[in-house]
Amino acid sequence: MGMVGGGRGAFIGGVHRMAAALDGEIELVCGAFSSDPEKSRLSGEDFCLPPSRVYGSYQEMISKEKRLPESERMDFISIVTPNHVHYGPAKMALQNGFHVVCDKPLCFNMKEARFLETLVEQTGLLFALTHNYTGYPMVKQARAMVRNGDIGQVRKIVVEYPQGWLSTKLEDSGQKQADWRTDPKRSGIAGAMGDIGTHAENLAEYITGLKITELCADISTFVEGRLLDDDGNVLLHFDKGAKGILHASQISAGEENNLNIRVYGTRAGLQWFQMEPNTLYVKWLDKPMEVLRTGGSGLYEEAAAHTRIPAGHPEGYLEAFANIYRNFAFCLRARLEGKEAPAVYHDFPSVHDGVRGMQFIEKVIASGKSKKKWVEF
Amino acid sequence: MGMVGGGRGAFIGGVHRMAAALDGEIELVCGAFSSDPEKSRLSGEDFCLPPSRVYGSYQEMISKEKRLPESERMDFISIVTPNHVHYGPAKMALQNGFHVVCDKPLCFNMKEARFLETLVEQTGLLFALTHNYTGYPMVKQARAMVRNGDIGQVRKIVVEYPQGWLSTKLEDSGQKQADWRTDPKRSGIAGAMGDIGTHAENLAEYITGLKITELCADISTFVEGRLLDDDGNVLLHFDKGAKGILHASQISAGEENNLNIRVYGTRAGLQWFQMEPNTLYVKWLDKPMEVLRTGGSGLYEEAAAHTRIPAGHPEGYLEAFANIYRNFAFCLRARLEGKEAPAVYHDFPSVHDGVRGMQFIEKVIASGKSKKKWVEF
Amino acid sequence: MGMVGGGRGAFIGGVHRMAAALDGEIELVCGAFSSDPEKSRLSGEDFCLPPSRVYGSYQEMISKEKRLPESERMDFISIVTPNHVHYGPAKMALQNGFHVVCDKPLCFNMKEARFLETLVEQTGLLFALTHNYTGYPMVKQARAMVRNGDIGQVRKIVVEYPQGWLSTKLEDSGQKQADWRTDPKRSGIAGAMGDIGTHAENLAEYITGLKITELCADISTFVEGRLLDDDGNVLLHFDKGAKGILHASQISAGEENNLNIRVYGTRAGLQWFQMEPNTLYVKWLDKPMEVLRTGGSGLYEEAAAHTRIPAGHPEGYLEAFANIYRNFAFCLRARLEGKEAPAVYHDFPSVHDGVRGMQFIEKVIASGKSKKKWVEF
Amino acid sequence: MGMVGGGRGAFIGGVHRMAAALDGEIELVCGAFSSDPEKSRLSGEDFCLPPSRVYGSYQEMISKEKRLPESERMDFISIVTPNHVHYGPAKMALQNGFHVVCDKPLCFNMKEARFLETLVEQTGLLFALTHNYTGYPMVKQARAMVRNGDIGQVRKIVVEYPQGWLSTKLEDSGQKQADWRTDPKRSGIAGAMGDIGTHAENLAEYITGLKITELCADISTFVEGRLLDDDGNVLLHFDKGAKGILHASQISAGEENNLNIRVYGTRAGLQWFQMEPNTLYVKWLDKPMEVLRTGGSGLYEEAAAHTRIPAGHPEGYLEAFANIYRNFAFCLRARLEGKEAPAVYHDFPSVHDGVRGMQFIEKVIASGKSKKKWVEF
Repeated sequence: MGMVGGGRGAFIGGVHRMAAALDGEIELVCGAFSSDPEKSRLSGEDFCLPPSRVYGSYQEMISKEKRLPESERMDFISIVTPNHVHYGPAKMALQNGFHVVCDKPLCFNMKEARFLETLVEQTGLLFALTHNYTGYPMVKQARAMVRNGDIGQVRKIVVEYPQGWLSTKLEDSGQKQADWRTDPKRSGIAGAMGDIGTHAENLAEYITGLKITELCADISTFVEGRLLDDDGNVLLHFDKGAKGILHASQISAGEENNLNIRVYGTRAGLQWFQMEPNTLYVKWLDKPMEVLRTGGSGLYEEAAAHTRIPAGHPEGYLEAFANIYRNFAFCLRARLEGKEAPAVYHDFPSVHDGVRGMQFIEKVIASGKSKKKWVEF
Repeated sequence: MGMVGGGRGAFIGGVHRMAAALDGEIELVCGAFSSDPEKSRLSGEDFCLPPSRVYGSYQEMISKEKRLPESERMDFISIVTPNHVHYGPAKMALQNGFHVVCDKPLCFNMKEARFLETLVEQTGLLFALTHNYTGYPMVKQARAMVRNGDIGQVRKIVVEYPQGWLSTKLEDSGQKQADWRTDPKRSGIAGAMGDIGTHAENLAEYITGLKITELCADISTFVEGRLLDDDGNVLLHFDKGAKGILHASQISAGEENNLNIRVYGTRAGLQWFQMEPNTLYVKWLDKPMEVLRTGGSGLYEEAAAHTRIPAGHPEGYLEAFANIYRNFAFCLRARLEGKEAPAVYHDFPSVHDGVRGMQFIEKVIASGKSKKKWVEF
Repeated sequence: MGMVGGGRGAFIGGVHRMAAALDGEIELVCGAFSSDPEKSRLSGEDFCLPPSRVYGSYQEMISKEKRLPESERMDFISIVTPNHVHYGPAKMALQNGFHVVCDKPLCFNMKEARFLETLVEQTGLLFALTHNYTGYPMVKQARAMVRNGDIGQVRKIVVEYPQGWLSTKLEDSGQKQADWRTDPKRSGIAGAMGDIGTHAENLAEYITGLKITELCADISTFVEGRLLDDDGNVLLHFDKGAKGILHASQISAGEENNLNIRVYGTRAGLQWFQMEPNTLYVKWLDKPMEVLRTGGSGLYEEAAAHTRIPAGHPEGYLEAFANIYRNFAFCLRARLEGKEAPAVYHDFPSVHDGVRGMQFIEKVIASGKSKKKWVEF
Repeated sequence: MGMVGGGRGAFIGGVHRMAAALDGEIELVCGAFSSDPEKSRLSGEDFCLPPSRVYGSYQEMISKEKRLPESERMDFISIVTPNHVHYGPAKMALQNGFHVVCDKPLCFNMKEARFLETLVEQTGLLFALTHNYTGYPMVKQARAMVRNGDIGQVRKIVVEYPQGWLSTKLEDSGQKQADWRTDPKRSGIAGAMGDIGTHAENLAEYITGLKITELCADISTFVEGRLLDDDGNVLLHFDKGAKGILHASQISAGEENNLNIRVYGTRAGLQWFQMEPNTLYVKWLDKPMEVLRTGGSGLYEEAAAHTRIPAGHPEGYLEAFANIYRNFAFCLRARLEGKEAPAVYHDFPSVHDGVRGMQFIEKVIASGKSKKKWVEF
């Protein structure tokens, strides 16, 4: 693995490194950790990399790594930069034969997204987008239950992603995360809706297998002087007649990272909370609620295959994130060995999820500005 | 107290009787318990009433009670019939000098609602609408906290009322509650939105002191052949710039009676669940979450005055419902004695809340049919 | 109902009155509300009783009521005084033909307890002891599940009753409840173990149907200068080989009224919390945990018959307390009418439970002082 | 790191490897993964180790690694074998100058324990015992709060460790974990009390800083034919007058891994659940309960320094386990560089904790067989 971004002071880069390291399947062999070469160099030292494999730019990394013998060079790049530096390295990596793991959202707009999608299809390279919340075993259980008809036909979906950390104008304080996430130049046309709304959208479509067909959004910026949205409430229509609500917010004071979802079918409702991720509530129409647990009884293989330790030993955010890396690694290793990884490991978010997310961002922002009730996908 | 409705087989009538009896302030002295005189008579026997005080119709009850000596006759009527039999007895009672407790929603349409409102204002009689969820101590605490500025300026409100009991076409089974609540002739133009959506609307306005100014609704009937809505998702704009979401549903499979609300201000968020009503979560922006509890430390007088037993002895739905009756009784007794009840007891839903509820029903159903995004109040 | 104790300033008297009133089955017709006749008189006024039915002492009440015509006089007395005034009125009432409801613990020592037990047997009068926590529907469900073998053979019981309200020397402040409960002259030989330990003991035996055969107690007084125990930790042996732990405390800082129990059998474990009483957790050995709910699916008749309102409308402490009064009233009315109440309503704590409680108090205090490991029942 | 044990089919070995890998501070360089050399070899392949560094026995590993140049050889060994193979490799490693990480319990009896303790003291080598539950940030927060006097003087401690997985005679099924844990030859004189009771004992002493001075135990074997205890209920006396209860069980049907603790002081009570580890409840005597959260507001440095990601991104069992490895690695690296690691990282369980655990095992088993109430430490 070669990393783009994630140097000293970054947040998500460290998460990617821990997630990649956890299962002993992936080794960090090189990186362009910062757009500032000196910072990149220092970061490389932190990670005990040989200086020759620490690069001053992603361009340098990709071109130099390509010239290394196949057995030595990185197998894939992991892009952990702010949004405006996703497209460039992803495109260049794919064009040079490297597989890609990329943080979300995929890129900056639909044009870029479609281009990357085409490139992935043309090259046949592996591409994983780290919509990490789909890595939780109980999310996979929920998806399997819907797919197997356990809860009947889906009628209603409520997905929420409230956070409170941008309740004040934190970006003025120099806080790095707040800074770029509220800056249209680096974040894109959306703030909260891009940063976390896309996670909510992805989670809803992942679990239900349904696609949003139209939406009606009320998008707000509550903090004075902020340049992007910090709150959004959205009515959703899915295919097959399902309806839903999505709301995401970064001004919901006191909320930590409270992503959660409810899916109501004709036979039962499912409920899952990211902050208590090892529990899935199954609310049956006509019998007592059941509480499914990571590592516990009554789970589908999809859940069991993404669990590391016995029930009651809580697995968290990093383990879910690591499931994406591990599955990617299993598929990559299988390919390198000319094999096929078991189907259960083919489950990681793809470039198509990335396109879907970009589409959601464009539609939801458009709807927020529209007087028309429904905006179609 | 004289009761209209609530005879054998009814649900909410029994709730009203228990709520009225709990504090020993109110005595059931007469009733017209059913539109079927024989059923009314039998119900009167159940309640150990003398036959002379059991009437065959509310008209008979009001006119005969009026002729009794003041010290003997009922002081007020309690209307616990289906929606289509609220307006008649309320109007007649007010016109004949009886105070009124009335189940919600107030009546059938805005015209009736405005008429009753005027009648209450003209007669000066007491009128309580049993939006019972505002009777919970922790709801009153939330309201007091908002009013006192504890959570700063309100930005976002999320109020939910999911139930699952109408996930199938229960009305075809002869179940009495399902039968009238899905029948436009008895329930009015709205199903779920009238039955429980109005509770959600009332709760949000009660706690925040804000008024809905416009809304955008997605109203659905999921169960085939049902005549009224069984689900609604609504975007809300409140005055003073607050925004919100309201959703109410009777097809959310597996949900019992899961009314809950979150109110996010600039300094903190509040969260309350009806099914665990003795707890109020206060999520501070910059210090640990606090958990306020009925009967516990750190509460305003508004909460303390509506609590009967020490912390940790759970109070429930009936106690909250009884708070409306008790406050009504305190105000009525004070009036009969030419006094004024302490301000903290003047807190019960009024005919104005009833008008507001009717308005909500009309607007939300209209919005559901509109292609325009926002419908103004 | 005639009440002994429960005048102005009392706590549990008000609870008894609300519990008795809730279902409209019982009327308060007279009382000796205080050992101070003037205070009794004023309390009688509060409850709108005619002065002739408000007595200066329980002796006066029992003898005068006895002389009233049968149709007028009270049917039973309710004793809600501190512990040292249970035996006297209970004995006199039984000896004069009145049925009895008595607060717990039954009396002051085993001798008194055995005498009352004999008196109840000889007179055949109804006697209810208000171990109110057994009135909760989910407690009855737990008992039915154990009895029906749902959880297999019981192996281990953990019952806890932590409170924190006596963490400081509250009795010095003049607080009335703290005052008598820590006074050996009025409370007896035990403090916390008598006041709440007996509730825990009763709950464990009620749910499991097992009897404690021996115990090993560590009894403490943490607050300096306090005259009775304020904390106790007890190892238990039950018949049929079950083992257990009971701990009760009034110095567990920050705890409200956290009575809870777990019962582990060979097939499943049950868990119930008094502060969230409408939920019963069933932890199956080999399938997902189920969450049973008051008014919900999958309950035995014993639970359903003690529920007043639909699932999701929380019932609380007063409703559970009222279940004891209601069952007592059903049995009493049936007897007065020469009938037999349905079996499901014969379920209220008896004088035998009271004897058991006194025994527990004597044994647990003795064990606390003993160097021997086990003290037999 | 060189690993002893943890080959194919093992459980805790994988946990140690993930915990060691997470932070990129530790590299697995060699191992003796099984007492079966062929199995060791295959396991080494799984971990991509060069064959030369995969050994057939710990003896071989220690002696051969010792002969490697200092820059190449392992810095420490990690012992992840069943209990009966802790003492041998620990002793040999220490005697040959290798630092040690060892799974708990430390060894087989007090004699071995004392010997290892002396050896650690004499060699000055680093020794970490993986009482992993002390690695959770909220456990460290609890400890800091007690130490800083936030909850006043500790009065009562309740520590529980219920599991249900040995409710049936699982050892007869060939399940590897059940097999050795119920075998006195490999597990020692205690079953549940050694396996998980020691975790509970360690957690209580870690958080409170108090030492158990005497105990009174009721030790049981519920499953017929089982050779070691599967349940224990213990009364505890701590120094400074605190009292407590410890119970640990492997026959508590339906329980996963429900380690939890409550500590009551004169000013507040603390409560922590391993299965929801990112939350610490602080129950104040005279103000509302506060809910402290990993990564949240109001935490001591001891908690913050052991947290990897922002609040609301749940950290779990592996992260807590990794905190022990990371702290050990920080201290080891500092030592290798002739420096001193910051004080906050010196926090990992030591050989002294191991001695304490062995003492607990001996005393608790002795007490279980004694008719005397208290057994002194």
